[in-house]
Amino acid sequence: MFNQKRIRDYGVVIGRLETGPRNAITDVEGVTVGHVTLSEGNSQTGVTAILPHQGNIFKEKLIASSHVINGFGKTMGTIQMRELGTLETPILLTNTLAVGTAADTLVDYMLEQNPEIGRTTGTVNAVIGECNDMFLNDIRAKFVKREHVLEALQNTSSDFTEGAVGAGTGMLCYSLKGGIGSASRIMEMSHGKYTIGVLVLSNFGILTDLLVQGKAVGEELKEALLESYKEEDKGSVMVIVATDLPVSERQLNRILKRAVTGLSRTGSIITDGSGEIVIGFSNATRVPHEKPEQLLAIPQLHEEDMDTAFRAIGEATEEAVLNSLVTAEEIIGRDGNKRPAFKDLIEKIDVSLV
Amino acid sequence: MFNQKRIRDYGVVIGRLETGPRNAITDVEGVTVGHVTLSEGNSQTGVTAILPHQGNIFKEKLIASSHVINGFGKTMGTIQMRELGTLETPILLTNTLAVGTAADTLVDYMLEQNPEIGRTTGTVNAVIGECNDMFLNDIRAKFVKREHVLEALQNTSSDFTEGAVGAGTGMLCYSLKGGIGSASRIMEMSHGKYTIGVLVLSNFGILTDLLVQGKAVGEELKEALLESYKEEDKGSVMVIVATDLPVSERQLNRILKRAVTGLSRTGSIITDGSGEIVIGFSNATRVPHEKPEQLLAIPQLHEEDMDTAFRAIGEATEEAVLNSLVTAEEIIGRDGNKRPAFKDLIEKIDVSLV
Amino acid sequence: MFNQKRIRDYGVVIGRLETGPRNAITDVEGVTVGHVTLSEGNSQTGVTAILPHQGNIFKEKLIASSHVINGFGKTMGTIQMRELGTLETPILLTNTLAVGTAADTLVDYMLEQNPEIGRTTGTVNAVIGECNDMFLNDIRAKFVKREHVLEALQNTSSDFTEGAVGAGTGMLCYSLKGGIGSASRIMEMSHGKYTIGVLVLSNFGILTDLLVQGKAVGEELKEALLESYKEEDKGSVMVIVATDLPVSERQLNRILKRAVTGLSRTGSIITDGSGEIVIGFSNATRVPHEKPEQLLAIPQLHEEDMDTAFRAIGEATEEAVLNSLVTAEEIIGRDGNKRPAFKDLIEKIDVSLV
Amino acid sequence: MFNQKRIRDYGVVIGRLETGPRNAITDVEGVTVGHVTLSEGNSQTGVTAILPHQGNIFKEKLIASSHVINGFGKTMGTIQMRELGTLETPILLTNTLAVGTAADTLVDYMLEQNPEIGRTTGTVNAVIGECNDMFLNDIRAKFVKREHVLEALQNTSSDFTEGAVGAGTGMLCYSLKGGIGSASRIMEMSHGKYTIGVLVLSNFGILTDLLVQGKAVGEELKEALLESYKEEDKGSVMVIVATDLPVSERQLNRILKRAVTGLSRTGSIITDGSGEIVIGFSNATRVPHEKPEQLLAIPQLHEEDMDTAFRAIGEATEEAVLNSLVTAEEIIGRDGNKRPAFKDLIEKIDVSLV
Repeated sequence: MFNQKRIRDYGVVIGRLETGPRNAITDVEGVTVGHVTLSEGNSQTGVTAILPHQGNIFKEKLIASSHVINGFGKTMGTIQMRELGTLETPILLTNTLAVGTAADTLVDYMLEQNPEIGRTTGTVNAVIGECNDMFLNDIRAKFVKREHVLEALQNTSSDFTEGAVGAGTGMLCYSLKGGIGSASRIMEMSHGKYTIGVLVLSNFGILTDLLVQGKAVGEELKEALLESYKEEDKGSVMVIVATDLPVSERQLNRILKRAVTGLSRTGSIITDGSGEIVIGFSNATRVPHEKPEQLLAIPQLHEEDMDTAFRAIGEATEEAVLNSLVTAEEIIGRDGNKRPAFKDLIEKIDVSLV
Repeated sequence: MFNQKRIRDYGVVIGRLETGPRNAITDVEGVTVGHVTLSEGNSQTGVTAILPHQGNIFKEKLIASSHVINGFGKTMGTIQMRELGTLETPILLTNTLAVGTAADTLVDYMLEQNPEIGRTTGTVNAVIGECNDMFLNDIRAKFVKREHVLEALQNTSSDFTEGAVGAGTGMLCYSLKGGIGSASRIMEMSHGKYTIGVLVLSNFGILTDLLVQGKAVGEELKEALLESYKEEDKGSVMVIVATDLPVSERQLNRILKRAVTGLSRTGSIITDGSGEIVIGFSNATRVPHEKPEQLLAIPQLHEEDMDTAFRAIGEATEEAVLNSLVTAEEIIGRDGNKRPAFKDLIEKIDVSLV
Repeated sequence: MFNQKRIRDYGVVIGRLETGPRNAITDVEGVTVGHVTLSEGNSQTGVTAILPHQGNIFKEKLIASSHVINGFGKTMGTIQMRELGTLETPILLTNTLAVGTAADTLVDYMLEQNPEIGRTTGTVNAVIGECNDMFLNDIRAKFVKREHVLEALQNTSSDFTEGAVGAGTGMLCYSLKGGIGSASRIMEMSHGKYTIGVLVLSNFGILTDLLVQGKAVGEELKEALLESYKEEDKGSVMVIVATDLPVSERQLNRILKRAVTGLSRTGSIITDGSGEIVIGFSNATRVPHEKPEQLLAIPQLHEEDMDTAFRAIGEATEEAVLNSLVTAEEIIGRDGNKRPAFKDLIEKIDVSLV
Repeated sequence: MFNQKRIRDYGVVIGRLETGPRNAITDVEGVTVGHVTLSEGNSQTGVTAILPHQGNIFKEKLIASSHVINGFGKTMGTIQMRELGTLETPILLTNTLAVGTAADTLVDYMLEQNPEIGRTTGTVNAVIGECNDMFLNDIRAKFVKREHVLEALQNTSSDFTEGAVGAGTGMLCYSLKGGIGSASRIMEMSHGKYTIGVLVLSNFGILTDLLVQGKAVGEELKEALLESYKEEDKGSVMVIVATDLPVSERQLNRILKRAVTGLSRTGSIITDGSGEIVIGFSNATRVPHEKPEQLLAIPQLHEEDMDTAFRAIGEATEEAVLNSLVTAEEIIGRDGNKRPAFKDLIEKIDVSLV
């Protein structure tokens, strides 16, 4: 978006389903994304906020679920999502050591919008995801402050930048510069047309494993590069999934579990040190905070409709990772550590992606 | 039922919620139970069948869930229940080594009712629970045959016997004779009146741990008994839960998890060797096997209505265990092994339960 | 401890296993506990820190696990504990809305002790548990600051106070004043004598459900009390378990799952709004952060030894809850809200506990 | 093996790790495999038995785990494996409706070898996996009998056939004939050289999704084929994993979870109707059935050694699926239903795999 060259602009078409108009998570109506980017010298980090709808999320919760692909991560808020099947705050992404600050600020943001929290009703469950950007960012310096978190929450839009921005500023992917990427798919069913959108914070993989549409592009690049990387994977990936499909939390969870098919097709082996966590919500149904007099009636798919969603999430996740790679700029960060941009290498080395 | 003296007839009232008319799992409309009892000499075993509704269960599935309290057990069918959130067969209970025979027969029973299985539609997921009755029953002899399983399935009723019957024939509970017990509770909510029913196959615990409404009755009995038992717990318990509450499978799972509060209040410490598994279904909603053109709309509770259900299942489970104990007759089984009936001891030792 | 009158001092003996010398979590060698109590007017809250051993926990991790009894809670750090089976920080308890501050401070505390974090090694997984103290504490005011968290971490001891202290300052239990309670049990096995210790942060239950050793003490109190409470349970309970048993993380998880038997025997029905989470560690084995050249050899129990541990955790949890109740002082907090002390009621109403 | 042309014989090399000498699950010392194939007319089914070691498995259990990728399946025995972390029987694979017969026969096989079962010790946990072969096999006819199960158990070997044999006789994969496939990888670590072996029962996927080393071979075939398939995926896949790595059950589970990376790279989207289950064991350590006087000491990897295993299982699973495809012969089965052999198509259509 915003005139960035994305993986499709290189002729790479992932899968067979149609994309939404933006080919981004914000194709799901009501979803907006905001970034704060702190990119200067040793500070290569930031915050990304995802608003699941534009109303009061605490009062109108969404059906939600999460799935842990690999749990070497510090994501917060999933216990309650799993128990109650709902999301009641925006989702924040940031670096690993900023989770506390992000959580504390998100709580304040929710308190301000909801004066009844802690008075006439209970508390609130903040959802924060993270990856470790220590290679490019001085993560010990804790550059992310309260004001950055608030700014990300307050400046979201349906158009947003990908690559080395927001929480993605200092992240690596397949030993190259990674970060934020997104994609979407349209799902046609007998009862309607639905959208699924994915946003990834990519921070995983080693160069030689990188596949683009099955092609071993990483190995090709590795041979061509003069400089050698210590190919160590201490990374992670956050996958945020939005949809307007009418689903139960169990059904949503089944969809989230398939994100791994897309990650795998970019070459991931899901290393030990990688926190890989999928968080998703459907804004097809709003679950009221206050108990109504009557029963709820939750619209949902028949299980046989699920295959389209399973295909969609795999495709969108695979494409979102590739978008995060191909849009990211080279970053020189902490102590001069640097990671090249995939797009620079493609030109320099004249590697063909198709 | 059937004129058996139950725990309430001894003046013991568990909890504060009202019971259903039968105070049994069959208070949930549509639920019926059938036993086949094989009690003769070394053969002290049997089969119990629970029909969740009286229609074609494969075509009209029920929302269902299961919960493993302790997994030292061989229950079959829970993987698919967990994935799809539905039950599509009756539930069978039997002894541990009869699970294969029970499963094979239940498959045949389903094939006969549904000629499209394995032809125009997929297969079927049989649900079988078990406990180990080896102390009283020659479990190696495998007395349970295909005809017994069919007979249990074909002769169910809303009235049924408790104690040393059906799958409970050879089971022990708190070192006494255990087996089948049941109880139910009524749940009043703003939108209606609902029922939850529990049936247990009790086969766990050592005498000195037995509590009746908090009273250490087991210790009292232990002191009074001349004969001494080797108090070893290799047992288990199956808890089958039926309700007409409109719930999602996640909500049902939350209810099932609370069965352990009732078990605990009878004195259980949940020993290592004990397979303790809860399986439940709601017949408030029937999920069609065939995909309809339109979306489903699943009626369900608001989460704040759940506390009544949580209280109900604890009370019903506690009472069902006590009913299984107090209705069971003394059995002398394999190699002369025997376990006394709780009811005989109450009289003989003049222990007061209240 | 510290001359507080505990439940045993009222003649109530829970279970049959011997207690450790302090009858507290700190009977497990190396474990210390620190409180910061903020009790003044509308501020009725605090922090409790549990140090699992006195060395560098990040470098010498402990086998650890967690279990969610009910997930309506905001506990942080369990995803990684589950994946890797280890604990690498102290455990903090505080109020729900202070989790962000506690996490952020614990990260700083760990960074200071471990200069290699975020440089030559990865990040660190902070473990924070919480309960909601909004009835007595102005939770929206966020009284817990960085300095309080540090103070709790820096002033731990093997002797500590129970009741309305630390994170327990503003908590309720069975509609009475609750908070911190502890207990321990000795486990004799063929290969040695081991200890299990429990510390609870109690904040759950309604008065009429309270059982003391099976006796319906809550109902008795309810009738005697002139004032009437709105018996609503929006609470939760954190159960922290320490042991020196040599166990695998799977075995430890099995033990943690049995804490619910103790909670149930105090009368809990595990309400919807209650975050009930168990976190445990064994300091029998230290798992090195750095990979050694050779394989690890993890000493562990045979499964048949587990029953003693299962009995121990149930007993210790039940007693810890009762200790939290009986040691807590009456608190008048936010907007004059107050909860009486159990110990005052016992005297006033002349209720017998045995 | 046995002179079958495997995927490597077509020039396709999956991944970068070395294979074991047989490139099969039986490269793990002690593991043997046996098939019974029932291929005649409407009967296109069978049984495959995997023996994890050649001793008494009940008395010398192995550390084991399972992972459900998609739970639309009827696999039996995983509850206890998860609770206790051990395997105590051979593993059987067969068709979905034969699970009961297989379980019943495996129990008898175990009873015969262990006269103490059901007498002086408890019962036994049979592990059975399955896929649905109804397209080629008359699954309703239940051709698998007790004698076939016993024969598979009694005739295992370290050399075995792949393709349309044993449980794989009637299975489909990517709309072609599928079945049994295997592969292995060597893992070099500082403390030794280890092997991981995979055996798949492949029965999933639609032709147009098939990828061979990233190449969209399925789409190419689809265009070339005159006959058109109804591309419906009602399949499943069983993945059996053997290793001699010294691991805890948690570590083994982490390895099993990565099998999905290999499946995904062959093109799978993990459809709704597919039971995809991974079962694995390590025969590095034997866990005694009888409790010893002393503690166990379980050798295990440091977590940082895991990446090699994660890479190995992905590679071996991907290659095992391709081996199952390329070794399978065309089958004409029930009602003349047929599926072509991949190997025949490769020749006929002159598709290049590399």
